[in-house]
Amino acid sequence: MQDALVLSARPGIISFSLGLPSPDLFPVEQFTLACEKILGRGSSVLQYAPPSELLKSHIVSLMRHRGVECRESQIFLTSGAQQAVNLVVAVLLDSGRQIIAEELCYPGFRQIVEFYRPEVLTVPTDPSTGMDVDKVEWYLESGAKPVFVYAITEGHNPLGVSLSEEKRRKLLTLSENFDVPIIEEDPYGFLTYEPSQIRLPMRSQRADNVFYVGSFSKILAPSLRVGWLIVPEELTRHLAVLKETVDIDMSTFSQHVVAHMLDSGFLVEHLKRLRAEYTCRRDVMVKVLSKRFPSDSRWSVPDSGVFIWVRMPEKFDTKKLLTVAVDRHQVAYMPGSIFRVGSSGGDSPSSLRLNFSHPSVSCIDEGMSRLGDLFCSSANALACAE
Amino acid sequence: MQDALVLSARPGIISFSLGLPSPDLFPVEQFTLACEKILGRGSSVLQYAPPSELLKSHIVSLMRHRGVECRESQIFLTSGAQQAVNLVVAVLLDSGRQIIAEELCYPGFRQIVEFYRPEVLTVPTDPSTGMDVDKVEWYLESGAKPVFVYAITEGHNPLGVSLSEEKRRKLLTLSENFDVPIIEEDPYGFLTYEPSQIRLPMRSQRADNVFYVGSFSKILAPSLRVGWLIVPEELTRHLAVLKETVDIDMSTFSQHVVAHMLDSGFLVEHLKRLRAEYTCRRDVMVKVLSKRFPSDSRWSVPDSGVFIWVRMPEKFDTKKLLTVAVDRHQVAYMPGSIFRVGSSGGDSPSSLRLNFSHPSVSCIDEGMSRLGDLFCSSANALACAE
Repeated sequence: MQDALVLSARPGIISFSLGLPSPDLFPVEQFTLACEKILGRGSSVLQYAPPSELLKSHIVSLMRHRGVECRESQIFLTSGAQQAVNLVVAVLLDSGRQIIAEELCYPGFRQIVEFYRPEVLTVPTDPSTGMDVDKVEWYLESGAKPVFVYAITEGHNPLGVSLSEEKRRKLLTLSENFDVPIIEEDPYGFLTYEPSQIRLPMRSQRADNVFYVGSFSKILAPSLRVGWLIVPEELTRHLAVLKETVDIDMSTFSQHVVAHMLDSGFLVEHLKRLRAEYTCRRDVMVKVLSKRFPSDSRWSVPDSGVFIWVRMPEKFDTKKLLTVAVDRHQVAYMPGSIFRVGSSGGDSPSSLRLNFSHPSVSCIDEGMSRLGDLFCSSANALACAE
Repeated sequence: MQDALVLSARPGIISFSLGLPSPDLFPVEQFTLACEKILGRGSSVLQYAPPSELLKSHIVSLMRHRGVECRESQIFLTSGAQQAVNLVVAVLLDSGRQIIAEELCYPGFRQIVEFYRPEVLTVPTDPSTGMDVDKVEWYLESGAKPVFVYAITEGHNPLGVSLSEEKRRKLLTLSENFDVPIIEEDPYGFLTYEPSQIRLPMRSQRADNVFYVGSFSKILAPSLRVGWLIVPEELTRHLAVLKETVDIDMSTFSQHVVAHMLDSGFLVEHLKRLRAEYTCRRDVMVKVLSKRFPSDSRWSVPDSGVFIWVRMPEKFDTKKLLTVAVDRHQVAYMPGSIFRVGSSGGDSPSSLRLNFSHPSVSCIDEGMSRLGDLFCSSANALACAE
C-alpha cells in the first residue's frame, strides 16, 4: 500500500489504486475551527489522557443512525480501523487456529492475520449479493471451528458489493448457532448511494457476537487516525492493555478534534455532500467503462463504498498490464491478484479494482479512457495472437 | 498505566505516578500557529501520505546536536516511542529467544516483550552508574545468545540514573564483539540538567548495531504521537510493512505540525526552558525528600529525565502504602515492585518512583510533604511493632 501511495503521488499519474477519500471534500474549515477552539481551551488536549468519553458518546449517537444500539462502555477507540482489526484479531486469534474469510480480501486484513499463520477457510463472493454464506454453513456443519468470520458488509474491499439482507440474517444465525463471532468491518457504511436500499449493519441485529469496526478516515479525514470498535464490555479491558502495549494511547488532540467537529452537527450535511459527489464519480466511471472498455469486460455498480471491481476476459493479465498502464499511459489501478488469499480467488488475475472516490470527475473521465484504450488494444493483440 | 492516568486525573490528587510532561510547558502557541499554517496550505495534510521527508530531515539535524550522524533513509517515523520499540522488537525477536534487560525496567517494554515469551536475562542497575555491564559480559561469555540488549541511556525509567560513559563504551564493545544489537531508548535524551555532564547516546559511537528510539512526546507534546527509530536502512522496509499492518500510517497532520514547529527554530529555546523548569522541580523534590522523608530513605539526584527513585528501609511495603497515600493523603506515586522483571529487582518492593516533571513546584512541595509525613508515621509504627 505504501508503494501504491508513493506511485499515486507521482506527478502526472491518474491513480485508481487506493481507497483514498477525496481531498477536495475534506472538511478543512471545520477542522481548522476545531483546532482553534480546542487549543483555545488550554494545553490539556496535548497531554496523554484516557480515551475521550465525549467522543464515545458521539459515536453512540452516530451508530444509532445506523440502527445500532450500544453503550459508551462498549466503544473502544483506536488509531483507525486497521488498528481496530489488528487489536481485535490479537484478542481472538491464537497461532494456527482456523478463521473464515473471503477468497478475495482486503490485503490489510490478510497482513494482520498472516502473523498468526491461521488456517484460512475461504469462501467465494457473489458479485451482487456478497459472501457465499452457504459455504460458511458448509464449513461449520463439517466441523470447522473458526475463531471468527471476517466480513465487510458495505462496499466490500475489493469487490464493491454489499452483503444482501438475507445473507446477513443467515450469517447471524450461523454465528449464533455455532457460537462463532463475526468481525464486521464497516469503514464505508456511511457512504451509501441508493437511499432506497439502506441496509443495517449486522451489529444492529445482535450485540453479543458481532465485533463492529468503524472509522472516521473515509467520512472526515484519514489523518485524524480515529477509528472505533464496538465490542462486549468485558473485552475493552483486554483491548486497553494491548493498545497500551502497541502505542500507549490515542492522540488526545485527534479525539478532541473529532468530538468538536461532531458537536457542531455538520456531519449530516457533510455525509450528504460526500454521497452526492461519490455517486457522481461512480456514475462517470461506469459510463466510461461501458463506452470505452472491451465489450466482454464485466462489473457491478456498487451502491456503497469507493470501489468498482472489473472482470476482464480470462486471457488478460492485469498485473503485467499495470506496468504498461503506469509507464506508457500514466494511469494506475490495483491488479486483482493482490487480493487473493492463498491460491483461491478464481478469476482475480484477469480482474482489477478501481477507486472512484479519490480522482476528480475529469480525471476519472481521462484516466478511464486511457485505460479503456489500453485494454481494447490488448484485447486486439491477444485476439491476433490466438 | 491507563489506570494510573485515570487516578492522576482525579480532582484533588497530587500525582507523582506517571512520566507526564508538564502541561504548563506545552508550546500551545507554536502548536496553534503550526495548525493554522499547515491547514492554510490545503487539504493534503489530512490525507494518507508517505512518511514526511521534511520531518525526517529535521530529525537528522536534531540528532546531530547529540553527536549522532545519520541519514533520512535510516529514520523510521512511528506513533510515539512505544510503537517504535514495539516494531523494532517485532522485527528482531522470535518466540522463546533470549534478551538482556535490567531487573527494574519500564513496564511498557516488559509488556511488549512478554508477548514473545522470551527468556529475559536480567542485570542489576547501579544507582549512580546504571546497568551492570559486567553482568552483561558474564552472560555473553557464558554462551548466552540474546537477540538484543535493551537500555535507556539517559534518565532511566524507573531509576532516574544515566549510564556512565565508561559503561556505554564497554557495552558498545560487547555489542560489537558478540554481535548483539542494542535497543537504545532515549525519550529523555534532550532533558539533561547538568551542562557539564552531557553524554552522547551510544548511537553516536556506532551506527550499525545500535537501534535508537527517539520521541517528541516529552519535548513537544505526547498528543502528537510522533516518535522515531534510527536503524540500518535495510530494516526500514521491513518496519514499513509492519507499521502498515498495525495501523496503516502515521498521522500526516501530526508529522506536518512537528515539521512546521521545528522549521520555526523555536525548539532550542524551548528545550532550555524545559531544562530550567524541570531542574527547578527536581531540586524542590530533592529538598523535601531531605527535609521530610525518614532519615534512612535513599535516592540519587538524576541529571536527566523526569524520575527520582527512592529506596525506603526494607520493611516498607510501598504497594500497600499507596492505597493509604491515595485515599487518606490524596497523593499518588508508583510502587517499585511494578517495575520488576520476573522475581528479580532486589529492594524494589520497598522503593518508589516519583515523577517531578508533571506537578508544579507548589504541588511537589505539598505532595512530597504529605508523603513524607505518611512515611515517617509508618516508620514509627513499624518501629513500635518490632
